Amino acid sequence: MYQKFIYTVSLFASSLFFSQIQKVEPAFWWKGMKNPELQILVYGKNIANDQIEFSDGVQIKDIQKVENPNYVFVTVNTNEINVPKFNISIKKGKKNISTYTYELKQRQSNSAARESFTSKDVMYLIMPDRFANGDEKNDSSPQLTEKANRSLPGGRHGGDLRGIINNLDYIQNLGATAVWLTPVNEDNEKVYSYHGYAQTDLYKIDARYGTNEEYRELSQKLNKRNMKLVMDYVTNHWGVSHWMIKDLPTKDWIHWFEDGENGFKRSNYKTTTQFDTNASDIDKKIALDGWFDTTMPDINQKNPLVLKYLTQNAIWWIEYAELGGFRVDTYPYNDKEAMAKWAKAITDEYPNFNIVGETWLNTAGHISAWQKNSKTGEAANYNSYLPSVMDFMLYGDLPRALKEKEGWDSGMNRIYNTLSSDFLYPDINNVMVFFENHDTERWNEIFNDDPKAYQLGLTLIATVRGIPQIYYGSEVGMRGDKNKGGDADIRRDFPGGWKSDKQNAFNPSMQTSMQKEFYQFTQKLLNWRKGKEVIHTGKTKNFFPQNDVFVYFRYNEKESVMVVLNNSDAEQAVDVKHFAESLKTFTKGKDILSDKEFSIRENFKIPAKTSMVVELK
Amino acid sequence: MYQKFIYTVSLFASSLFFSQIQKVEPAFWWKGMKNPELQILVYGKNIANDQIEFSDGVQIKDIQKVENPNYVFVTVNTNEINVPKFNISIKKGKKNISTYTYELKQRQSNSAARESFTSKDVMYLIMPDRFANGDEKNDSSPQLTEKANRSLPGGRHGGDLRGIINNLDYIQNLGATAVWLTPVNEDNEKVYSYHGYAQTDLYKIDARYGTNEEYRELSQKLNKRNMKLVMDYVTNHWGVSHWMIKDLPTKDWIHWFEDGENGFKRSNYKTTTQFDTNASDIDKKIALDGWFDTTMPDINQKNPLVLKYLTQNAIWWIEYAELGGFRVDTYPYNDKEAMAKWAKAITDEYPNFNIVGETWLNTAGHISAWQKNSKTGEAANYNSYLPSVMDFMLYGDLPRALKEKEGWDSGMNRIYNTLSSDFLYPDINNVMVFFENHDTERWNEIFNDDPKAYQLGLTLIATVRGIPQIYYGSEVGMRGDKNKGGDADIRRDFPGGWKSDKQNAFNPSMQTSMQKEFYQFTQKLLNWRKGKEVIHTGKTKNFFPQNDVFVYFRYNEKESVMVVLNNSDAEQAVDVKHFAESLKTFTKGKDILSDKEFSIRENFKIPAKTSMVVELK
Repeated sequence: MYQKFIYTVSLFASSLFFSQIQKVEPAFWWKGMKNPELQILVYGKNIANDQIEFSDGVQIKDIQKVENPNYVFVTVNTNEINVPKFNISIKKGKKNISTYTYELKQRQSNSAARESFTSKDVMYLIMPDRFANGDEKNDSSPQLTEKANRSLPGGRHGGDLRGIINNLDYIQNLGATAVWLTPVNEDNEKVYSYHGYAQTDLYKIDARYGTNEEYRELSQKLNKRNMKLVMDYVTNHWGVSHWMIKDLPTKDWIHWFEDGENGFKRSNYKTTTQFDTNASDIDKKIALDGWFDTTMPDINQKNPLVLKYLTQNAIWWIEYAELGGFRVDTYPYNDKEAMAKWAKAITDEYPNFNIVGETWLNTAGHISAWQKNSKTGEAANYNSYLPSVMDFMLYGDLPRALKEKEGWDSGMNRIYNTLSSDFLYPDINNVMVFFENHDTERWNEIFNDDPKAYQLGLTLIATVRGIPQIYYGSEVGMRGDKNKGGDADIRRDFPGGWKSDKQNAFNPSMQTSMQKEFYQFTQKLLNWRKGKEVIHTGKTKNFFPQNDVFVYFRYNEKESVMVVLNNSDAEQAVDVKHFAESLKTFTKGKDILSDKEFSIRENFKIPAKTSMVVELK
Repeated sequence: MYQKFIYTVSLFASSLFFSQIQKVEPAFWWKGMKNPELQILVYGKNIANDQIEFSDGVQIKDIQKVENPNYVFVTVNTNEINVPKFNISIKKGKKNISTYTYELKQRQSNSAARESFTSKDVMYLIMPDRFANGDEKNDSSPQLTEKANRSLPGGRHGGDLRGIINNLDYIQNLGATAVWLTPVNEDNEKVYSYHGYAQTDLYKIDARYGTNEEYRELSQKLNKRNMKLVMDYVTNHWGVSHWMIKDLPTKDWIHWFEDGENGFKRSNYKTTTQFDTNASDIDKKIALDGWFDTTMPDINQKNPLVLKYLTQNAIWWIEYAELGGFRVDTYPYNDKEAMAKWAKAITDEYPNFNIVGETWLNTAGHISAWQKNSKTGEAANYNSYLPSVMDFMLYGDLPRALKEKEGWDSGMNRIYNTLSSDFLYPDINNVMVFFENHDTERWNEIFNDDPKAYQLGLTLIATVRGIPQIYYGSEVGMRGDKNKGGDADIRRDFPGGWKSDKQNAFNPSMQTSMQKEFYQFTQKLLNWRKGKEVIHTGKTKNFFPQNDVFVYFRYNEKESVMVVLNNSDAEQAVDVKHFAESLKTFTKGKDILSDKEFSIRENFKIPAKTSMVVELK
């Protein structure tokens, strides 16, 4: 419907025909939203100079015209509209020039109360262009500039939604329960469009990944498996080729630097300025308003029309594609007051909906300040309404800890110290934990194929408080060097995702022995985690490390799990008396990694660079 | 009076005379305190078995007897006592066995509203044994075990209160306005008694430093100069030879480890356990209840009698010695609920009184949690009522920053990043800033006599928000290696403090050329700071460093100061346009360090490793 309309318009769009409706966004909406107000963007050449009329008695509550006459923003109250469809018409006097039929759909039952990802889940992060090519016909698209070329590390490789749909068994068997895709909306930039962060249409899946319908199909198929689809939402910037950027509604739709080249000035990335009350205005301005790249104009969320656009677009995707969460890109680069309104509007509409912000900061004070209802945010008179944040401190500390010798602040003590700031987070279970993602060095590059390091790292991520996130291919030891090829090397193709691939890691029986070792450990641990409420929502008790062995317990009223991480290069003894307060009257322990059961009333040993996850009985 | 009494008692104290009063603490008190309740400790052999009577109709509100019959704790209401003196008598039937005349003195006018150290002040930290020997007669004392021996690095060197009193001109001329002495109460340990942290009498100045009267004299002489005396208060531990430790009132007066040797178990120093809600009980217990050393039993502030004792003792010293503040040792090692009561009781009595805790922690989240009314404390359901904390983050970062090359997190960026967490502190001006103290490596040891490094460090400390603290001898480039001689090397004698010293750094005309360079810079900067409200209480604007040059402004409605710290090894240009928001319409700047005035409408240069403190005009 949506696509057919565009096609029809494009046939007639010419300078001869003024005031034709070229785009309406959102293309349709739903009845029965908690917030009945809907702002419809109507776009067409000089459309603001003509008359706009709504059929069926639909009342226009507000019309906003802006500097650019090609835009009209019309607000209606959907509660007051009693027809499923009505016409939006552009008229010159009595002459009807152009008409668009607007539909108000019925919502899915229980849509508002939809579930979302939580600490029960394990998040699997996929770069769709690099995962699996399920439909070779869409590798390139006549309408889109960049064509498939798998020989270019930073080119489009052909991975798509069908490739993901085809491998849902693999993902589910691995133990992941939520899937976060890097952006799949249209990104029609000339180069590097595969990463998707320079979006050129916020209402349309990139044709090289598939269609809106296929995106929804993926979500529905995940939901049937009791899994969730998490959209990577980008509020901070759009692609320079976005149709609205090419014909800006208002000058202040984006941040424009008069002293920059084509408005461009690079961000200084100093997002501590958001809460630092002593930060200079200029540093804060360049941090927030500066662009990530020349191809990504920085969006001005302070403009209420922009904010409304971003809010409605986000809600549209949740409702349309039956989403189970958002990950939001470069969260601290946005205007924080506007983002609080954005997050609140979405979670007012969907109270259980989870949104995790990419809070790439280095202290628990700064990261926690981004979480809803945090005291640290309150210290700066701020409430983000953002339910979840990413634990970039733990991310940064984990490989360092495993690489270095034990010391007061190093080795496992580094991890212990970092976790000692957990009290700053108002909802520590709703913090995403990870040791790599699409923007970082690959874990296995740092540790050079060492399965022991992977096992230690994954054990922590999978048993500590929060929502574990793994990155496609972690589980088969994929490597990648961030310093090589502009991030392309950390986004290599998953082996077996392409018909021509010589090796197929999707099929466990075809994995190399190294892949098997990584995969089987991952699968075992994550599948065990699925049913473990004690890990999802249990309390934590941390014992400060001795001899570079970190022991912590996850516990609730029903069960207790003892996690032992030996980061030292030697076998270590575990003195059970030291843990009496958590071992209580339990007598036996079963290490779910080795499947061995043993008495926990006696001291036991743990080999060098090994982890144990001990269910207490 | 107090000393005479002790002497009298000791003459008669023998097992033949039961129930003699051997000690009364506090020895006297004052009328007109806000809290009229006074708990008097009466000590004597088996005294609890006899009758205690108060003369002049003084009503006993409460008597507490404890496990040890040698103690009685009697509570009276001083509001209800209308005589200046009354007798406390011990009776056996009708026979009077022992009498102590208790005095309620008049308070100094305006005592309750006394001023205390603030960010207007510069704190000068002295180890009295190592500063100046003003009275050679008291170098040793017949009553005290350790005798003077200046040849021992860790021995007693003879420095005393008279030595400080004699050098007040020096301290004042330097620009310091508050003096913090490490503890000067009696410390009658056999060895290392010079550091004073193993106190054996909390109501008596160590005779080797002088008398209670001389301590008050020092305070009064400081007050006359509009300066303040700050007592180093130790709530966490007493010396093993303290008279009460040798005859414990209750078993739980101190923390006693059954599995330790003579009750001793060393602290694990993991005081993050105070706010870490996931910390294990055993880690927290060992951190808080563990001892610092075998000679320093850990005091149990949870015992209400202990807490009352510590509270009254603290108030007694403020009132008696006319103090201008407390520095409290090892703050996070104490029971934090009890300490909140302690700090509240003191500041309820003296609303302007400042107390700075030794909050030796590594994150702004943890340090700020110790400051009164902090949101970070609130995140752990805690309010410390402690007005001031020490910025150990900045302390740790400063030498590192000056030593390392510029990077995203290094060089001046390290300092900038640390300061970006200032929003977590509810009262950032009431934070003590320093780059060395009696427990740390000497700054000039780290920087090997480099005056440039000292000047950079001191400029920051003296112009950044907070209360600058310097350590005796910093100002003449004293060195000291913490890894040598058990801290003795970082506590060397001040040159010229002893008659036999060959060189006298107290006299500027006799300083070596290196001492002069350090001293003159310090004197100039600190004396300039004295009158600068804009530094004391002004706002801050930080500009993130470029080319390892950190620029910040201190400003209020009346004035502005631009601080430029060039940490790079090259001369750097300062692009004034970048600072337009703070330079405003000012036209000229005067660098108070070089006395040069110049136009701040034009870019200017700053030499390598140099600081400027520019008053804007």
